[in-house]
Amino acid sequence: MRVEIVAVGTELLLGQIPDTNSQWLGERLAANGISSYFHQHVGDNHERIVLAFRTALARSDAMIVCGGLGPTQDDITRAALAEVMNVPLDRDEALVATIREMFDSRGRVMPDNNLLQADVPRGATIIPQTRGTAPGLICQVGLKVVYAVPGVPYEMSDMFERAILPDLLERQSESGETSVIRSRVLRTWGASESALAESVAERFEALEHGGQVTIAFLASGIEGIKVRLTARGDNDEDAWSLLRDEERTVRALIDEKLGDIIFGVDDQTMEDVIADQLLARGATLAVAESLTGGLIASRLVNVAGASKWFRGGVVSYASQVKFDVLGVPEGPVVSAEAAEAMAVGVRKLLGADYGLSVTGVAGPEEQEGQPAGTVFVGLDLGDQVHHVALRLPGDRPRVRAYSAISALDALRRVLERHEVSPPM
Amino acid sequence: MRVEIVAVGTELLLGQIPDTNSQWLGERLAANGISSYFHQHVGDNHERIVLAFRTALARSDAMIVCGGLGPTQDDITRAALAEVMNVPLDRDEALVATIREMFDSRGRVMPDNNLLQADVPRGATIIPQTRGTAPGLICQVGLKVVYAVPGVPYEMSDMFERAILPDLLERQSESGETSVIRSRVLRTWGASESALAESVAERFEALEHGGQVTIAFLASGIEGIKVRLTARGDNDEDAWSLLRDEERTVRALIDEKLGDIIFGVDDQTMEDVIADQLLARGATLAVAESLTGGLIASRLVNVAGASKWFRGGVVSYASQVKFDVLGVPEGPVVSAEAAEAMAVGVRKLLGADYGLSVTGVAGPEEQEGQPAGTVFVGLDLGDQVHHVALRLPGDRPRVRAYSAISALDALRRVLERHEVSPPM
Repeated sequence: MRVEIVAVGTELLLGQIPDTNSQWLGERLAANGISSYFHQHVGDNHERIVLAFRTALARSDAMIVCGGLGPTQDDITRAALAEVMNVPLDRDEALVATIREMFDSRGRVMPDNNLLQADVPRGATIIPQTRGTAPGLICQVGLKVVYAVPGVPYEMSDMFERAILPDLLERQSESGETSVIRSRVLRTWGASESALAESVAERFEALEHGGQVTIAFLASGIEGIKVRLTARGDNDEDAWSLLRDEERTVRALIDEKLGDIIFGVDDQTMEDVIADQLLARGATLAVAESLTGGLIASRLVNVAGASKWFRGGVVSYASQVKFDVLGVPEGPVVSAEAAEAMAVGVRKLLGADYGLSVTGVAGPEEQEGQPAGTVFVGLDLGDQVHHVALRLPGDRPRVRAYSAISALDALRRVLERHEVSPPM
Repeated sequence: MRVEIVAVGTELLLGQIPDTNSQWLGERLAANGISSYFHQHVGDNHERIVLAFRTALARSDAMIVCGGLGPTQDDITRAALAEVMNVPLDRDEALVATIREMFDSRGRVMPDNNLLQADVPRGATIIPQTRGTAPGLICQVGLKVVYAVPGVPYEMSDMFERAILPDLLERQSESGETSVIRSRVLRTWGASESALAESVAERFEALEHGGQVTIAFLASGIEGIKVRLTARGDNDEDAWSLLRDEERTVRALIDEKLGDIIFGVDDQTMEDVIADQLLARGATLAVAESLTGGLIASRLVNVAGASKWFRGGVVSYASQVKFDVLGVPEGPVVSAEAAEAMAVGVRKLLGADYGLSVTGVAGPEEQEGQPAGTVFVGLDLGDQVHHVALRLPGDRPRVRAYSAISALDALRRVLERHEVSPPM
């Protein structure tokens, strides 16, 4: 079964609202082993909706239409469906009664407009509404099937789980397709997409020529590159077993070629990983930030329970604040020495076990003769002080964002190698 | 000109990432008076990409393709374009040199994979890359035109503004469509979308029945609600004149009903406005943050030239840091008194003219018997100390983000009313 999603609404074309429905449906379909090869957005215009529906039915086995089922003049999905099915719209009196009851039960009078929602293309099956007034529809169009649901995410998701997914799975099993799709994401920081692709190129090629797993690379902006492994198996266990084996192979290849660049899996963020490391040691952290201006601290605070291991930080944007508050020796502040002194200073000032700092040039102008993108990370683990020098690309916001995640990654790597000193 | 947007990437079909590109492009096209009737998503599969391209070229005048221009094996937009154009791919040696230079300048070796990015369908024009390695393409296909840009939003948006939009506007004007659409956005913070809509309801109705300006409300998440005025005129001057008159009318209505909630216009952010206020007074600012954990400081630092007026901040996440570093009296820290003491403390510690602070409960758990969403903002202007008590909705990240912009808005409002003391 290949399902095409068609989201109806001029507001989607104008970019006035994001299309969260297609994303949600895509994820739910994939999780249930149902393929989706195309999505479309189309505005509230009869001819164009009909054209989008015909396009979808020509290239996919099933179509889920979201939106255009409301009670106003621009809700025309029902009429477009009737045209594509080549049938008239009939007013369903049982639906009229249900919609009227819904208004009565809220002590409101049903506007006449809502009668439109009881119009049903002849031959269609109704998906009863439980969360709104617009019923959903299941329409057979030749050998293809169309599901129409309201665009309100809360009503759409209910109808999908209750009526569409069971129907799709039944059709899929009747057609003999019973496989499931599962995926695993490896999160990396510090390598380019092309370097990653090269590190697993041979494996990628081998899988292309007949494997049950595929590898994809997703650039995720300032969050690094994701390597996604997707397996199709006969059942859940089968798919996960394929994924586990593939993950081992791919991790070994990346580790060999590019070193320790995989920091987490699936939805894990860099700060989640650091939270786990700190919790495991019972250690606390303080941060001193110059060019990142609070970005590192605000990422750390996003982890629920951060108060267990995060003391706080100092944003020492002005040089004088570095000297006066953090005890950095007067002199150049874009330097390894300043970064280390900031880490030591903030660790002591805030009474933390570890101190992390970052200083550098966000740009666009150079500073102290150093070009934009020059960044130093300082680390004070109490028993040892480190620094890392970086050269980061991009404009001002990019340099800042890259600096923040790079500093966290530096801490992650050092903590992985750092032996915890025995308590005094 | 009817432009179809085709976003390429299996991750979009699987719902692994939201398609922010189509939304952004849709908004930018609409703002420039260019129609878009259809959007598509398609996965990284040659045949299906070709089919999606042919579908778009059959029903639209132009197509913007996002994604699939990267250096890896699953980046196949170039090859699909060549097939639709019925031309071979040629390797462009000038592009090879540019890409190689880009790697050299970062002190890295170009992986061979990146050579793929120098492959160009014969006859295509190159949009030079300034922010990444993948060049964009402009391809004439019969009477239609195709623009291909990388899927990375930051690279996509740059190429759109620099090359695609000017080209589209030129083609549009050549085709005799000469009316221009201009818009003006009023940025608001602190009122709901329905309250805003109600405040201008009569004007909205009047314009619906025959005006040259339209009013739209765009909820922009944590950045408040935008009120967008759009005017269609015969020329630039005409459209701007309509907009100026309408802006005056709408501002007066909103101000009368809802008070001083318009903080800026168009792309102006809250921190841009504060930067202007501080620069005008020659004053400096320091911030003390608890639940926002650096969000306020990092917003302020995003303004170019922030070093002229921003001293820095303290993220006093642990209560002990509030007491020890900021001199907050021991006691409850989710209180108006603590907020004021934090503002005073950070102003003095960092040697700034003004201090801004925020303390509160991000949730999900309550703290000191106060529910999630309880937030206090403190302000020390040197000659007067204020606080503002807030009750904010949402989960942990929302409460934090709302707290940050609310604190900045409180400072904006106080500074608007605050008379600058004569210098000593």
